[in-house]
Amino acid sequence: MYVGKEKTEKVKVTCIDYDGDHFQEKELKTIDECFPLKDKPAATWINIDGIHQLDNIEKIGKQFKIHPLVLEDIMNTGQRPKMEDFDDYLFVVLKMLHYDEEENETKTEQISLILGSNYVVSFQEDEGDVFGLIRERIRADRGRTRKMGADYLAYSLVDAIVDNYFRVLEKIGEKIEDIEDELVKNPTPEVLHTIHSLKRELIYLRKSVWPLREVISRLERWESPLIDKSIDIYLRDVYDHTIQVIDALETFRDMLSGMLDIYLSSVSNRMNEVMKVLTIIATIFIPLTLIAGIYGMNFRYMPELDWVWGYPMVYIIMLAISAVMLMYFRRKKWL
Amino acid sequence: MYVGKEKTEKVKVTCIDYDGDHFQEKELKTIDECFPLKDKPAATWINIDGIHQLDNIEKIGKQFKIHPLVLEDIMNTGQRPKMEDFDDYLFVVLKMLHYDEEENETKTEQISLILGSNYVVSFQEDEGDVFGLIRERIRADRGRTRKMGADYLAYSLVDAIVDNYFRVLEKIGEKIEDIEDELVKNPTPEVLHTIHSLKRELIYLRKSVWPLREVISRLERWESPLIDKSIDIYLRDVYDHTIQVIDALETFRDMLSGMLDIYLSSVSNRMNEVMKVLTIIATIFIPLTLIAGIYGMNFRYMPELDWVWGYPMVYIIMLAISAVMLMYFRRKKWL
Amino acid sequence: MYVGKEKTEKVKVTCIDYDGDHFQEKELKTIDECFPLKDKPAATWINIDGIHQLDNIEKIGKQFKIHPLVLEDIMNTGQRPKMEDFDDYLFVVLKMLHYDEEENETKTEQISLILGSNYVVSFQEDEGDVFGLIRERIRADRGRTRKMGADYLAYSLVDAIVDNYFRVLEKIGEKIEDIEDELVKNPTPEVLHTIHSLKRELIYLRKSVWPLREVISRLERWESPLIDKSIDIYLRDVYDHTIQVIDALETFRDMLSGMLDIYLSSVSNRMNEVMKVLTIIATIFIPLTLIAGIYGMNFRYMPELDWVWGYPMVYIIMLAISAVMLMYFRRKKWL
Amino acid sequence: MYVGKEKTEKVKVTCIDYDGDHFQEKELKTIDECFPLKDKPAATWINIDGIHQLDNIEKIGKQFKIHPLVLEDIMNTGQRPKMEDFDDYLFVVLKMLHYDEEENETKTEQISLILGSNYVVSFQEDEGDVFGLIRERIRADRGRTRKMGADYLAYSLVDAIVDNYFRVLEKIGEKIEDIEDELVKNPTPEVLHTIHSLKRELIYLRKSVWPLREVISRLERWESPLIDKSIDIYLRDVYDHTIQVIDALETFRDMLSGMLDIYLSSVSNRMNEVMKVLTIIATIFIPLTLIAGIYGMNFRYMPELDWVWGYPMVYIIMLAISAVMLMYFRRKKWL
Amino acid sequence: MYVGKEKTEKVKVTCIDYDGDHFQEKELKTIDECFPLKDKPAATWINIDGIHQLDNIEKIGKQFKIHPLVLEDIMNTGQRPKMEDFDDYLFVVLKMLHYDEEENETKTEQISLILGSNYVVSFQEDEGDVFGLIRERIRADRGRTRKMGADYLAYSLVDAIVDNYFRVLEKIGEKIEDIEDELVKNPTPEVLHTIHSLKRELIYLRKSVWPLREVISRLERWESPLIDKSIDIYLRDVYDHTIQVIDALETFRDMLSGMLDIYLSSVSNRMNEVMKVLTIIATIFIPLTLIAGIYGMNFRYMPELDWVWGYPMVYIIMLAISAVMLMYFRRKKWL
Repeated sequence: MYVGKEKTEKVKVTCIDYDGDHFQEKELKTIDECFPLKDKPAATWINIDGIHQLDNIEKIGKQFKIHPLVLEDIMNTGQRPKMEDFDDYLFVVLKMLHYDEEENETKTEQISLILGSNYVVSFQEDEGDVFGLIRERIRADRGRTRKMGADYLAYSLVDAIVDNYFRVLEKIGEKIEDIEDELVKNPTPEVLHTIHSLKRELIYLRKSVWPLREVISRLERWESPLIDKSIDIYLRDVYDHTIQVIDALETFRDMLSGMLDIYLSSVSNRMNEVMKVLTIIATIFIPLTLIAGIYGMNFRYMPELDWVWGYPMVYIIMLAISAVMLMYFRRKKWL
Repeated sequence: MYVGKEKTEKVKVTCIDYDGDHFQEKELKTIDECFPLKDKPAATWINIDGIHQLDNIEKIGKQFKIHPLVLEDIMNTGQRPKMEDFDDYLFVVLKMLHYDEEENETKTEQISLILGSNYVVSFQEDEGDVFGLIRERIRADRGRTRKMGADYLAYSLVDAIVDNYFRVLEKIGEKIEDIEDELVKNPTPEVLHTIHSLKRELIYLRKSVWPLREVISRLERWESPLIDKSIDIYLRDVYDHTIQVIDALETFRDMLSGMLDIYLSSVSNRMNEVMKVLTIIATIFIPLTLIAGIYGMNFRYMPELDWVWGYPMVYIIMLAISAVMLMYFRRKKWL
Repeated sequence: MYVGKEKTEKVKVTCIDYDGDHFQEKELKTIDECFPLKDKPAATWINIDGIHQLDNIEKIGKQFKIHPLVLEDIMNTGQRPKMEDFDDYLFVVLKMLHYDEEENETKTEQISLILGSNYVVSFQEDEGDVFGLIRERIRADRGRTRKMGADYLAYSLVDAIVDNYFRVLEKIGEKIEDIEDELVKNPTPEVLHTIHSLKRELIYLRKSVWPLREVISRLERWESPLIDKSIDIYLRDVYDHTIQVIDALETFRDMLSGMLDIYLSSVSNRMNEVMKVLTIIATIFIPLTLIAGIYGMNFRYMPELDWVWGYPMVYIIMLAISAVMLMYFRRKKWL
Repeated sequence: MYVGKEKTEKVKVTCIDYDGDHFQEKELKTIDECFPLKDKPAATWINIDGIHQLDNIEKIGKQFKIHPLVLEDIMNTGQRPKMEDFDDYLFVVLKMLHYDEEENETKTEQISLILGSNYVVSFQEDEGDVFGLIRERIRADRGRTRKMGADYLAYSLVDAIVDNYFRVLEKIGEKIEDIEDELVKNPTPEVLHTIHSLKRELIYLRKSVWPLREVISRLERWESPLIDKSIDIYLRDVYDHTIQVIDALETFRDMLSGMLDIYLSSVSNRMNEVMKVLTIIATIFIPLTLIAGIYGMNFRYMPELDWVWGYPMVYIIMLAISAVMLMYFRRKKWL
Repeated sequence: MYVGKEKTEKVKVTCIDYDGDHFQEKELKTIDECFPLKDKPAATWINIDGIHQLDNIEKIGKQFKIHPLVLEDIMNTGQRPKMEDFDDYLFVVLKMLHYDEEENETKTEQISLILGSNYVVSFQEDEGDVFGLIRERIRADRGRTRKMGADYLAYSLVDAIVDNYFRVLEKIGEKIEDIEDELVKNPTPEVLHTIHSLKRELIYLRKSVWPLREVISRLERWESPLIDKSIDIYLRDVYDHTIQVIDALETFRDMLSGMLDIYLSSVSNRMNEVMKVLTIIATIFIPLTLIAGIYGMNFRYMPELDWVWGYPMVYIIMLAISAVMLMYFRRKKWL
């Protein structure tokens, strides 16, 4: 049973069969058309865009003798990246990330790969174009893909997915820089929310990338006849890339924590400033108000009231008090 | 001796005996009725709802030659999930979680399993329905259970328990989303308490799930004749599920931490706002009050008092001061 | 040399010699009386309450051929729980915890055990009663102790100590619940101090329990002829208990951290509330005071002063201002 | 393809060929000139300053039979420090740090080394002088370099890079001490920003140094015929240095965290002080103002107003109230 | 080259040669005098106080065939504690801590040991007295030192250094207790600075002790002919001591963290108290001031002013308002 967002798009199946000499590509109406290719020695890549139709998956399961639990895993989009060896084939689940410019957030898509001795079956949730470059390279016989087997193709697919991670990281890096400017210019609560939503995005990224690291590390160290020794160095290269992705994620996380600290302390600095203004105004004017109040009293016997210079004298006293207060504040470095 | 909440319900014992061909289910009055089945080759599943009656447990102990410490563990509901191998049988303790809608909190129940060569004995604290689906499947001969042995049955029970965890996680996820809305709209201290009670719930969940992960991982890697190699892939599947549960718990924990930060900073933002209002009002009105006070003084010689335009002039001065102050606040971005 | 609190109580030495058939218990005046028992095949348990007298320890050291460093460790109460194998005997140091109701705090006592082929020597700092139950069981021939050897006795002693931990945990659990109520009703600084003293108590408990876990785990895995294979399952049981103790400690610690957060945020909530009251009072009354001040001015030409309705009009204006302010606060949700 | 900051400087290639007896150094116009040296037994060191020109790298790749992925890694400056063994040669990527006095920040440069049986090829991003000392030593036949092979030369290069780290650490240490003084004298928000920028610098340093530690540790433990056993002790020495660098980084990080705490608490101390001044002034003058207000009332029957000593009495009462208030504050330790 | 604080004191070299029967001690003028002892079977201990003179170190290096890197390490006081095996000798670097009463801080000194088959060479930065006790014991033939070889001597030196750590810990413990009292009585910013300087001291201690733990653990597990099996139990004893030191450090760190929390919350409690006083005074007196202001208005038609009881009535109203306010505060638990 398919587990994930509901979908109605038609499932698209393409099949590429190649070796050093020949190349054949077709879009299939029914999945059965590609099964004869399976038995030829040339490498066959079956790509299925859309995993919400049970019958395709089941047919492939029957033809390639895939374990029912694997088929369940393929159709359940809540998988964790993992790699499993079933002797006849390797089963790999990965998460593809891509940044959706319109909704301004990172999207995740589950990619499952089945690597047999001379075939790769790849399952995508949606029609995507991340594998487009690889298809191009096979068609044009560029790079090494045509000269090598299904294992190299599987590596290429994984590599394409990991390369995409860097693009997502770049986007997040840009966002972090944007917030940093904001933080200095205008630390509003919105900045705080952006920091937190980025933090959450990083949490989800980590969930995809950490197990991926393990998957690729296991692929590299795995002693399977399905993966030729010569592929190891390429897998180590992808492994290095995932480590770089993880490094970048950790750095981003540390940076966001630092930004949270800056935000909080800038809020408390602002409060401090507000308090200082209030205190300065209040402590200067309250004593002056008292003086005015005193000479507003109605006692019959208040000699000052009859003095000719009484009124200006009050102003002089008030100025003196203000001056003393201001000097005090200046010495306290509040002004 | 039974250790746990006091109970008086009657203990319910059911027994299911099956293989590919035949199937027999009965509710037993005394536990002794099921012992003859033990020696037949067909798989036997004895389920005991209620562990607060010593004699049943003791009889099973004697019949199946269970170590006395195991019987103690079964009756003590404070166990940690664990797995122990006694050559003749495996002993597994698990925690079943289910969300109690009425009391609005997660409940824990201890489940003990004894897996012998052709039997499974399961002990539950209360009559529950989490195993109902499995019973259905055996009765209707759906799925693979009837075709496989006692080890597959044990796996099914563990799987049913772990599947239930996802339902509890969903509930917690919903609660977290609810608080998030609250947090933006109205950050009251109640929200803080809800965050903390959710945090505590996660702590308890972690206590159940982390050792569970170890238990299942050990079951999978265990070289016991009681578990057939073909079961390993199913166990690995449950293992993947527990990892997913742990992942979700960690994500929830990170989210709650982030929400705590938002709560605290929104409280301090509110304080800031309150302080600003106070400061604006005070710094505008205090100087005005001083002016009013000054012209309320009773000095005999105050020339302004006799001016015809003195009174309106005061208003003009006051307006001017207010305007200057407001401009100052606007420049400081307090308004 | 004895390292620990100074003591003058008399050292009490008791000796129990038993096997399945016979039983003998005596309180000794001099430690020498028990040495003849050592060479008989029956299990001998020598318990020494008080480790501040050098000569007893030295005599035992000579008789049982204990390494001098072990004797030093026995007399130094600052040991960390540990287990060491000297081929002829195992040396185990543990910490016994018990809750002192009078002083309202947890006390620690160091217990050292020497397990030989047919004897156990146990050293306690004070006369305690935690081993009383075991003595009872041996006397009455209840349980399995009499039927088994010195290794089972050593296990029983360790088990009794670990069981005592649960009682201490219960006490701490009760205290935490008490503070929780306090925290909601009346978050005084005293609550903070209680939280911190509990935190410190947990730190000390961790220091006793974490190495204990290691000690018991090593005992279980240790390939020593002094410990029979049949004891392993019992040791694993104690091991499970220590893990439960550690789990509880970690949970308590997390709970205390959460309570600290709640305390701090409730303090800042209170401050917020105080500020709001101040702000509401000040912002309502300061403008009113200004109005009163204005009509208290002594200008000769103030037409309002001569109006018949001037005075009531001032009240009406004041009421209007107050109403507007109150509405503003209500809209801001400060009331 | 070169990945990194765009560059147009000319690439500089130098070649040193030496053994115990002879020495030859030349700056090359085209890289091809140095290839004949490769086949002689003497150690050859080819140093390339500038990795942004594809053809040089490719020629070297062809001559020394370097794997294409290695060439890609050399030209991509975003590598993580790593070490890879290709049987014929070892490939090492390192990060060189140097403190740029002008821009007041730490700069990172990627250094790649290829160690063959009798040659070392080193790639630098820019013309640097960190290897100058080694060149001097080879020219003057000082130290052990001339007597030993290419492996010792590779060690020397790594050692020179790690030594440079200490200089960067010193700079950071000085900066931290500067802030510390600032923190006590004048805790402005700028100090906070400096603390955070230093924190970030440490994050980047960690990213370079942690994998470096692993690289050197692997070099030391690696069983490669390319590295003689006698080099191990030197590698262990560099390893100790990287550990010292890591230790210093961790210490710096802890110190910065402590300084953040001090900053925050000094900000809140300041706020406290501001509040105290406000409170003292307000609580002293507000009651006095009330008294002045009371005797400013215009009731017809106010006996005090007609007293001869009424006016001085008011002063006395005011002084008394102020004195009581001041005493209260003194007892509260606010003054 | 010597790396460390500049020094000019004369280097002091003492040499002790001993076995069970004979003993010889002399202070040497030139280091050469002790070299003949090296070849005799008796254990020889050469102690060098002062490592800032190159020639001594070099002579020893030549005589004992020490690797040049070891000599460099001895003269560089920035080493991390470590242990290295050079087959003929073991090289151990340790940090000795002692508390300088005058400067009120912990000082670190680097101690290097070279353990050969029948000699120990120890290097100290300054003339110290921590090894005095061992010298005494050898002279007086107390303890086991004379009966055992150079390996036991090396152990004794390490043991003496670790024992010194406890004295430093005691000092820090006393300081922590002092601050704790301060914290309750008078939480000034100075207390905060003391907490932070203690925290920093702990950071430095950790840097010395953690690698020490590893060094001793490796010494114990090391299969070197230079260390007799009988020494293992002594090394395990020192190991236990270092673990105790680490435990104490961790406890101190946790305690200091707790104290920081208490400090911060007591600061905010004080602020709270200040705010409450301000609020109570302001909210009581501001309304009263308004009333006084109202009856200070100069309206011609204010009937109350002509009432005989107008003036006392105002007092009654003021008292009533104050009473209501005070009750409100009491109900809010602010008084």
